[in-house]
Amino acid sequence: MTRSKIPVTILGATGVVGQRLLRRLADHPWFEVAHVAASERSAGKRYGDIPWRIPGARPSDFDDLILEEASPTQAFPPLVFSALDSGPARELEPAFASAGAVVCSNASAFRMETDVPLLIPEINAGALDLVKVQRASRGWTGAILCNPNCTTTILALALAPLHHAFGVEAVLMTSLQAASGAGHPGVPSLDLLGNVVPHIPGEEAKVEEELPKILGTPIATSALCHRVPVIEGHTEAVSVRLKGSPSPEQVREAFAAWRPDLDLPSAPRHPLMIHTAEDRPQPRLDAESGDGMAIHIGRLRPCPILGLKFTVLGSNTERGAAGGALLNAELAFSKGLLT
Amino acid sequence: MTRSKIPVTILGATGVVGQRLLRRLADHPWFEVAHVAASERSAGKRYGDIPWRIPGARPSDFDDLILEEASPTQAFPPLVFSALDSGPARELEPAFASAGAVVCSNASAFRMETDVPLLIPEINAGALDLVKVQRASRGWTGAILCNPNCTTTILALALAPLHHAFGVEAVLMTSLQAASGAGHPGVPSLDLLGNVVPHIPGEEAKVEEELPKILGTPIATSALCHRVPVIEGHTEAVSVRLKGSPSPEQVREAFAAWRPDLDLPSAPRHPLMIHTAEDRPQPRLDAESGDGMAIHIGRLRPCPILGLKFTVLGSNTERGAAGGALLNAELAFSKGLLT
Amino acid sequence: MTRSKIPVTILGATGVVGQRLLRRLADHPWFEVAHVAASERSAGKRYGDIPWRIPGARPSDFDDLILEEASPTQAFPPLVFSALDSGPARELEPAFASAGAVVCSNASAFRMETDVPLLIPEINAGALDLVKVQRASRGWTGAILCNPNCTTTILALALAPLHHAFGVEAVLMTSLQAASGAGHPGVPSLDLLGNVVPHIPGEEAKVEEELPKILGTPIATSALCHRVPVIEGHTEAVSVRLKGSPSPEQVREAFAAWRPDLDLPSAPRHPLMIHTAEDRPQPRLDAESGDGMAIHIGRLRPCPILGLKFTVLGSNTERGAAGGALLNAELAFSKGLLT
Amino acid sequence: MTRSKIPVTILGATGVVGQRLLRRLADHPWFEVAHVAASERSAGKRYGDIPWRIPGARPSDFDDLILEEASPTQAFPPLVFSALDSGPARELEPAFASAGAVVCSNASAFRMETDVPLLIPEINAGALDLVKVQRASRGWTGAILCNPNCTTTILALALAPLHHAFGVEAVLMTSLQAASGAGHPGVPSLDLLGNVVPHIPGEEAKVEEELPKILGTPIATSALCHRVPVIEGHTEAVSVRLKGSPSPEQVREAFAAWRPDLDLPSAPRHPLMIHTAEDRPQPRLDAESGDGMAIHIGRLRPCPILGLKFTVLGSNTERGAAGGALLNAELAFSKGLLT
Repeated sequence: MTRSKIPVTILGATGVVGQRLLRRLADHPWFEVAHVAASERSAGKRYGDIPWRIPGARPSDFDDLILEEASPTQAFPPLVFSALDSGPARELEPAFASAGAVVCSNASAFRMETDVPLLIPEINAGALDLVKVQRASRGWTGAILCNPNCTTTILALALAPLHHAFGVEAVLMTSLQAASGAGHPGVPSLDLLGNVVPHIPGEEAKVEEELPKILGTPIATSALCHRVPVIEGHTEAVSVRLKGSPSPEQVREAFAAWRPDLDLPSAPRHPLMIHTAEDRPQPRLDAESGDGMAIHIGRLRPCPILGLKFTVLGSNTERGAAGGALLNAELAFSKGLLT
Repeated sequence: MTRSKIPVTILGATGVVGQRLLRRLADHPWFEVAHVAASERSAGKRYGDIPWRIPGARPSDFDDLILEEASPTQAFPPLVFSALDSGPARELEPAFASAGAVVCSNASAFRMETDVPLLIPEINAGALDLVKVQRASRGWTGAILCNPNCTTTILALALAPLHHAFGVEAVLMTSLQAASGAGHPGVPSLDLLGNVVPHIPGEEAKVEEELPKILGTPIATSALCHRVPVIEGHTEAVSVRLKGSPSPEQVREAFAAWRPDLDLPSAPRHPLMIHTAEDRPQPRLDAESGDGMAIHIGRLRPCPILGLKFTVLGSNTERGAAGGALLNAELAFSKGLLT
Repeated sequence: MTRSKIPVTILGATGVVGQRLLRRLADHPWFEVAHVAASERSAGKRYGDIPWRIPGARPSDFDDLILEEASPTQAFPPLVFSALDSGPARELEPAFASAGAVVCSNASAFRMETDVPLLIPEINAGALDLVKVQRASRGWTGAILCNPNCTTTILALALAPLHHAFGVEAVLMTSLQAASGAGHPGVPSLDLLGNVVPHIPGEEAKVEEELPKILGTPIATSALCHRVPVIEGHTEAVSVRLKGSPSPEQVREAFAAWRPDLDLPSAPRHPLMIHTAEDRPQPRLDAESGDGMAIHIGRLRPCPILGLKFTVLGSNTERGAAGGALLNAELAFSKGLLT
Repeated sequence: MTRSKIPVTILGATGVVGQRLLRRLADHPWFEVAHVAASERSAGKRYGDIPWRIPGARPSDFDDLILEEASPTQAFPPLVFSALDSGPARELEPAFASAGAVVCSNASAFRMETDVPLLIPEINAGALDLVKVQRASRGWTGAILCNPNCTTTILALALAPLHHAFGVEAVLMTSLQAASGAGHPGVPSLDLLGNVVPHIPGEEAKVEEELPKILGTPIATSALCHRVPVIEGHTEAVSVRLKGSPSPEQVREAFAAWRPDLDLPSAPRHPLMIHTAEDRPQPRLDAESGDGMAIHIGRLRPCPILGLKFTVLGSNTERGAAGGALLNAELAFSKGLLT
């Protein structure tokens, strides 16, 4: 470990998102994992004795870390990643922020608070300024920064270029979401093998309220969410009404012209991959291509109701969770928030 | 075999839809299978030597039938079920109709011809009157009757009560379709295991053009079709704009009030099953309940864009194919068309 | 309810096996469901408010039953089906048996006790005589009767005719087991979608110790158990060494000659279905054919190591659980044990 | 392209194995792809217009290559990879070998010929000497080198250390094989979703005859092969009788002691990964870890019939096909066979 790296803490280090965070941090140029925390049940165990639940070899760097119980002692700050469920997040994240930590949270607990940035760095890096408001109003020395829900993140990345170029008036999104979005144990195999579950508790409301906050304007949004027997990668069928009714060709140009200027270690060179094969993108083939930080758009065509329809796909646990939280931390660091 | 039953011919008897037709006809009160036809490659084989590809024991009644090559000889009329692909259907169905057979077709070849009934007996039984026009214009003694595409059928059954009660102005439907809809061999397992294919050739156009023909009025329709790793049962996420913007409760009442008066052997007592559990209907649990002729509706809720959204599920190979064709034949018989 | 039917109690009525038991009992000629019991958490709820987790429509007969907490009060005897997990079974089943109930148990808790019948009526109906020993040694007026583990049951039904005709000397069985065998929630979908889990806790030992008890003689048995992404139906690849090294043809004859004389309502007419197609039996197509009480055998061929190999498939939740327990109860009733 | 690299030809370049070969060759230190060949149907197309069917981004290096019809013209030698089916391989591979090419073949056509090396470099590199015999007897200036069937390769790698340390007397192997082993389109999804197919044409015979040829001695071998709904990675449940009946601990030591000395670019540093978690290895998590060239062994335990049982898993399309063929080519090059 290089001494000059920022030590970080992972809350919820044993779950699917926590493990993806660890893998991303194994060779990170700015951050190094100093603490791993989990529930009381796992506290005290060697990290190397925890089952590794994501494909590929386990990074050996963390085997000798000892799982701690999440608690904002002096040991933990200044940078904390929270891969906690909403319940524990509601209690623990403010405690860490109050103790001086910048908490990059994947949980939904504080996303809709008016003084909390709901960040996708390519889209609304300026929302980071809310930290000043947050600190003033709450008296914290740290802060909470949230990445959106995985489904929202993928949708917002597809809509941002269109909102920038034309203005989005209404969006109707039907999702086909992967099992990994529910974590482990998550959805029982009896419910998902060869099946579709047409309901994901709370998901539709999250998309409908988070999207306008990210794009910074009220937008009529309707989400219809489904769980499908896919391991990784949320597919979203999107119909959208744009100002001025641009053609699919103009939309294609708007996607191509959208080049967010983001020089961060985890930022993908091309956050949008445009597919022309009529049966792509597909979660098994495309979701984790590259390192899972790009989203994939295809099947651009006119919609008889709203004007334009297309498919967008992204990695729910990388771009939609672990990688999204990390990118937020990198943005915070680059803006001097961690020093 | 009882002499008084109508002898029927099955074209495409070895496929998934053909086998479901045979199973439905094994004990039918009005019809009895006299001929089974398939491609040149299978002609001459005992039916009992053909692999049985649907769950459950093979009905033994048909084991000794010999597969014939489809050809409208004298032997085949008067009632023919066509489970052919569109290409062969385009050629063979007119030949049979010209030779005097009433062809109940599951193929798409003639669905959109203006003189061909596109029938769902609960919805538009009156379309049978087109047969007179068809015979006059084409000089046939027989006729072609079509059931709609499986996805359209399920959607139309859900919308008919709403169209009757309120008027449907616009409908946006995203499908999650089962593998059985593509027949056997159909979709390769490498393309579908743990995956979503966001494209089904021709499917979206079929839904968008067939639905208005069935409901008898132009309706703005947008379909977004996906193949998912499910064996049987198409799930459809529907958003709809209704005249007068009725509440979900009024919609629920309209569904309950819709009691088509159809006294046919394959007609379900309750063609609509309304689910209140928020995670139903599901294809594995509900698609084939009963004998697969009812459709299942759930998750009625307001849509911020079009007013109302809900989930509808149905058996694509039963209600959407084999059972649909059989119901059409029963309607034709009850109206004196087969005598 | 007909007064002359025997009232029965279902312990574990909300699980997958409990629901299959209820469905089997909805029209049973001898038994009628009087009590449904479940964990403390569900006690007091209407049965109709419990999610129905097996395909097909929910039988309406039980909707108004109120779930009770399992406890051997006077209300419960004389016939009890236990679909409990092993832990609660170890405590509750003796309490019911002591209170006078005949407990037909699907749990593993007491299977290997020397005074407990481990029953498959077609194979070892005589084991019912152990009840006398059991009552004498334990001072019970009721009794515990066990059906074997699902994997063992399917294997034993395939081996019994061979053991009867030739004598089984050694058997090596590799299983590919369905998710339903682990109940609900059971195996997380993240562990099973597109995957194989090469370990099922305790399963291999159960097969290796239960099989000799059922066949009534020590037999070298090796089990290698796997969970595969199948909903229902355990497939077992079996190699067996038989006395006298009979040919596959002689084995086929022994299977055909095995006609257990069992006149019970749930006994299948042909408990063994022999398949000749080289790619059958398959769980999706065959496991639940009929009512899931027959087992399916195919791919009989020589084994270079042990002499004979074949595939056997059966419904783990019907023949291997709910139907097996019910058949045991029917045997007990027919032998006068319930009166 | 560096001029000093050996130009290679891929026969069957559009299939799953062909694409994995291309990906492996994109940055190879010794070889560079010069020709891609496929069936007459694809000849003349740009490679970049062929669908890419394996996960991850398509390597752009080959987009401008034009698919040629496979034919042993002067253009093709000296190094040819054959990912052909057995039928075309039987005809084309000798033509290329006769024209002077060293053909590294994944096809089964010539594997059992006595003068053809059936090579796994870690196990029987010496078999390369057969090339002299082959050239002498057939009058070829080139040669055919075969890698074994995917299932055999994985089994042989697990058994080689045991054969070396103790001697293998008998092996019974039950496979749970992935869909990718059948290529694309391969197994229809209707046959494999939520299902097991207990038969893979020709597979059991291949394992039973190839294994003894690789290990260099007659060994009683019994294979029971199944297709399961897994994308990649064959799981094999193995029971083995070893000379001297070593304990699982001695077996573990033999695995650890086996360090083949192979300094080739595609050779894994540790060809055997030994798992101690009782539910590992699993295809989804382990098959492609590293670059798919190691095999994974777990669940070492006593077998009541043959003495020892364990699970072995490997990537069927990498170690069992594309990577295996490439490793053979590297061995041939390192031994001077390509110059």
